[in-house]
Amino acid sequence: MSSVSDFVAQHRDRYLGWYSEACAIPSLALQPDGLAEMARWVEAKLQSLGADVERLTLEGAPDILLARMGSGERTVLVYDHYDVQPPDPLELWKSDPFVPEIRDGFFYARGAADNKGDLVARLAGLEAYQEVIGELPVNIKMLVEGEEETGSRNFEAFVARYGDKLSADGCIWEGAGVDHAGRPEFVFGAKGLAYVELNHRGLNDDQHSSVAVIAPSPVWHLVEALASLRDADGRVLIGGFYDDVLEPTKEDWEMLETLPYDEDNERRRLGVDRFIGGATGIELLRRYFFEPTCNIAGMEAGFTERGTSKTVLPKEAMAKLDMRLVPDQDPRDIVKKLREHLDTNGFEDIDITSFSMQSPVRSPVDSLVGRAVLRGAKEVFGKDPAPAPLMIATGPMYPIAGILGIPTVSPGGVCRPDSNIHAPNENVAVDDFLTTIEYTGAWIDAFATEA
Amino acid sequence: MSSVSDFVAQHRDRYLGWYSEACAIPSLALQPDGLAEMARWVEAKLQSLGADVERLTLEGAPDILLARMGSGERTVLVYDHYDVQPPDPLELWKSDPFVPEIRDGFFYARGAADNKGDLVARLAGLEAYQEVIGELPVNIKMLVEGEEETGSRNFEAFVARYGDKLSADGCIWEGAGVDHAGRPEFVFGAKGLAYVELNHRGLNDDQHSSVAVIAPSPVWHLVEALASLRDADGRVLIGGFYDDVLEPTKEDWEMLETLPYDEDNERRRLGVDRFIGGATGIELLRRYFFEPTCNIAGMEAGFTERGTSKTVLPKEAMAKLDMRLVPDQDPRDIVKKLREHLDTNGFEDIDITSFSMQSPVRSPVDSLVGRAVLRGAKEVFGKDPAPAPLMIATGPMYPIAGILGIPTVSPGGVCRPDSNIHAPNENVAVDDFLTTIEYTGAWIDAFATEA
Repeated sequence: MSSVSDFVAQHRDRYLGWYSEACAIPSLALQPDGLAEMARWVEAKLQSLGADVERLTLEGAPDILLARMGSGERTVLVYDHYDVQPPDPLELWKSDPFVPEIRDGFFYARGAADNKGDLVARLAGLEAYQEVIGELPVNIKMLVEGEEETGSRNFEAFVARYGDKLSADGCIWEGAGVDHAGRPEFVFGAKGLAYVELNHRGLNDDQHSSVAVIAPSPVWHLVEALASLRDADGRVLIGGFYDDVLEPTKEDWEMLETLPYDEDNERRRLGVDRFIGGATGIELLRRYFFEPTCNIAGMEAGFTERGTSKTVLPKEAMAKLDMRLVPDQDPRDIVKKLREHLDTNGFEDIDITSFSMQSPVRSPVDSLVGRAVLRGAKEVFGKDPAPAPLMIATGPMYPIAGILGIPTVSPGGVCRPDSNIHAPNENVAVDDFLTTIEYTGAWIDAFATEA
Repeated sequence: MSSVSDFVAQHRDRYLGWYSEACAIPSLALQPDGLAEMARWVEAKLQSLGADVERLTLEGAPDILLARMGSGERTVLVYDHYDVQPPDPLELWKSDPFVPEIRDGFFYARGAADNKGDLVARLAGLEAYQEVIGELPVNIKMLVEGEEETGSRNFEAFVARYGDKLSADGCIWEGAGVDHAGRPEFVFGAKGLAYVELNHRGLNDDQHSSVAVIAPSPVWHLVEALASLRDADGRVLIGGFYDDVLEPTKEDWEMLETLPYDEDNERRRLGVDRFIGGATGIELLRRYFFEPTCNIAGMEAGFTERGTSKTVLPKEAMAKLDMRLVPDQDPRDIVKKLREHLDTNGFEDIDITSFSMQSPVRSPVDSLVGRAVLRGAKEVFGKDPAPAPLMIATGPMYPIAGILGIPTVSPGGVCRPDSNIHAPNENVAVDDFLTTIEYTGAWIDAFATEA
C-alpha cells in the first residue's frame, strides 16, 4: 500500500480539512439541528466518492445513512456513527470542543476520537483507494447512524425494519484503536449497557436543615441505597447480577496473555496508587473484557455551589448508574434485578428510569472479515495486531452480530487509551489518523482476496 | 397596648412598605454590594428613629450596626441580621424572591421570615412606641450583623473586640416565631453548627466509564464514606459524636410536655409517612431540642443533566454536611472526630473544608429578660407563650450568651413552621408581622417594669 501511503501523505492537509469540517459540526446527541447538519455532511461526502446513499428513516429517530459503493462477490458492512457526546464540563477544555485545533501533533475536538476520526479516515481511505488503485473490489455498505452516544435506542428497530438491506459477509465496526504499546486493537464483540437514572423525592419541599432531626432525608436514603449496591472492591451486590456472566474460555485466556498492558503507565495516567480491589496483571485484562460494572456516572442533590455554605435538607436526590454488561447478561433483566434489590432492601420509594439498554454480544474471532482486517493491519501498522475478545466500551453491535448474525470486528483505528473519549480534551494523534486512512485501503484489498 | 395596636393598624401600609423595601434588597450572604445596600437601609431607618448608629468594623467582614436608643436604668441588647440565604433553586419560586408579593394574606420574599420580618417589625415597633407612648424607658442597643447566614464566622471576633460596647442586662435575639398551634415560641439558647465540604478527587481526569472495571471510583468512594457516617435511623456513627451531648433535665422534660406538637400536620406538611427512626410523641420534641444531626445539605458528581444519559467515570465528588450540634458539643472537636472517623475507615483521601463553626449554648429561662418577653407576649399574642429550651436552628448566640454571659432569649416573632425559611417561597403571614410590631412595644414596657 505504499502508493496509497504516499497519496495520503501528499493529501494530508486535504484530509485534515475534512476532519476539521466534521468535528466543527456540533452533532450532539439529542440535538436535531447539529445531527441533521452532520448527516448532510456525511451524505454529501459519500456522494462525492461515488456512493449511492439512501436514508433509512424511523419516526422520532435521526436518519441512518446507508451508502453502497464498489462491486464484487463479497460484501462488507461498515458501521460508524455521526453523533458525539456532550462536551461538558466545558471549563476543563483547553480549546473550544467544536473549533478543532492541532497542538503538538494531536488533533483536539469533541468527536475527534469517538467516532469522527475513524469515520473521516474511512471516507478519505475510500477516496485514496479509488484514486490510487482504482475500482473498489468489494461491495461496501457504509452504515452511519446518529444515536450511538445515547445508546442507539432505535438501532434494533432500524435493523428489524431494514435488515434485508444490510446483508453482508462481514461487518467492520467503528475502530477499536491502538493500545498502550502502539499495537492496533481488534475486538470481536461489545459490552452491553444498562443506563438508569435513580430519583428519590422524599419531602414536599426543601426544608430548613433543623428539621433533619425528625424528617427522613432523601439524600441519605439514596446514599444508603447506592451503598447497598456495591462493595468497596467494586463487586456488585444486586442479587443475581452475575448469574449470566460467561467466564473466559481457555482460548480467551490465551488471547488475554498476548495482550500487552502497561500497568504502571495506566496507574500514572489515571493518577491512582492501586487498581480497584487491588487487581494486578492479567486480572486487569480479565476485568476489562469479562467483568460487568455498576458505575455512578453522576449524582446531584441540594446545594452544590463549591466553597460556600447553605444549610438545607433537600427534598430530593438523583443518581445516574451506567452498568456495562458482558455476555450473556441482559440489560432489561439487570434493571429488573436492580428494582428487586431496591424493593427488598427498603428502597421501593426510589424511582428507576431506563435510558439506554444495549445487549452485550460476542462474534467469532476466526471469520473472513476477522482474518482480513488482521492481515491488512500487518501491512500498515508498524506493530503486530492485538486481538481481544470484546470492545470494552459499548456499541450497538448486538443487532448486527447477534440478531443478523453477521461476523463483526472492530479493528485498529484512531483512538489511543489517552484519547479522552467522552471527556474534556478529546484528541487523536494526527499520525494515527493518517495511518487509519491508509489502513482502509489495506483491509479492502485483504477482504477481497482473503481465502 | 391597644393604642399601639390601633396605630399599627392605621399604619399597616407604611410598615408593609418598609418590609417590601427591605426584602427587595438582595442582601445575599457573601455578596458585598447587596449587603452594603441593606446595611445602609437599616442604618438610615435607625437614624430616622433617633438612634445613634455606630458601625463596628472588622477587616474582611461586613460591618455590624450598633444603634443606641432610649434611656433608663436597664439596658437590653437586641440582635438581628441583615443578610439572607441564596434563593436557589430559583425555578421553584412562584414569585421573584426579591420582588416581595402579598398573596392571600402572606408576604412572600427571600428573607421575609429569616430575618427581615422580625428586624423590620422591631424597627416599626420602635417608631410606634415613640409615636404612641413616648420616650423609650430603657436603653436599647440594636445589634444588626451581616454574616448570620454564612455562620457568623466573624461574630466571635467582633464580640471579642467590641464586647464592652455590648454590655446589657439581657439580650433579645431574632424571633423564634409562632408554633403550629399559633402560640408564640421562646427559646433560651441555640444549637451549634459544624458545616463542612467533603471533596474527593481520585483520578487525574474524567474517564470513559469502561475504565470503571479497574479504576477506583471517586463517587463510590465518597458514597461509601457518607454511608459509614450514619445509620438508617439517623444515628451518627462518627466515634465520640455524642460524647458531650447533655441529656434533658427533669425541668427540660417538663418544658417539653407543655409544648404542643401536631404530628399529623407535620407529617402532611413534610409529605412523609413516618418520622426518622419511627419517632413519635415527645420523642420528636426531644429530638428537636436535644439531638444533634449530620445532614447532607448538597452533593454533586459527574454528569447531572436530568432525563438524558452520558456515560462517564467522574474524577471527583463533593458533599456538604451540616451538623447541627447541641450543648456541650464543640464544632471544632466534632470536625476533628469526623477527620478521625474518615482516616480510620479508609477515607483519609477525602478532604474536609470547614465553613461554619458555631458553638451551641443555653441560657437560663428564669431571667429578667426571659420574664419580660413572656409577660409582654401574654398581652399581645392571642395564645399562651410556649417556652422551649433551644433554638432548633443555629444562631451565633454563644458569644453573647456564653462568652459575655448575657441572659438571652429568642422570643415570639414572624416565623411559622411553614414559613419555608432557607427554601423557595419563604413567607410570613401579614398578621404575624403586624403582631410582632405591636409586641415590640409590649416587651419594651415589660423589660422596663419587670421585678
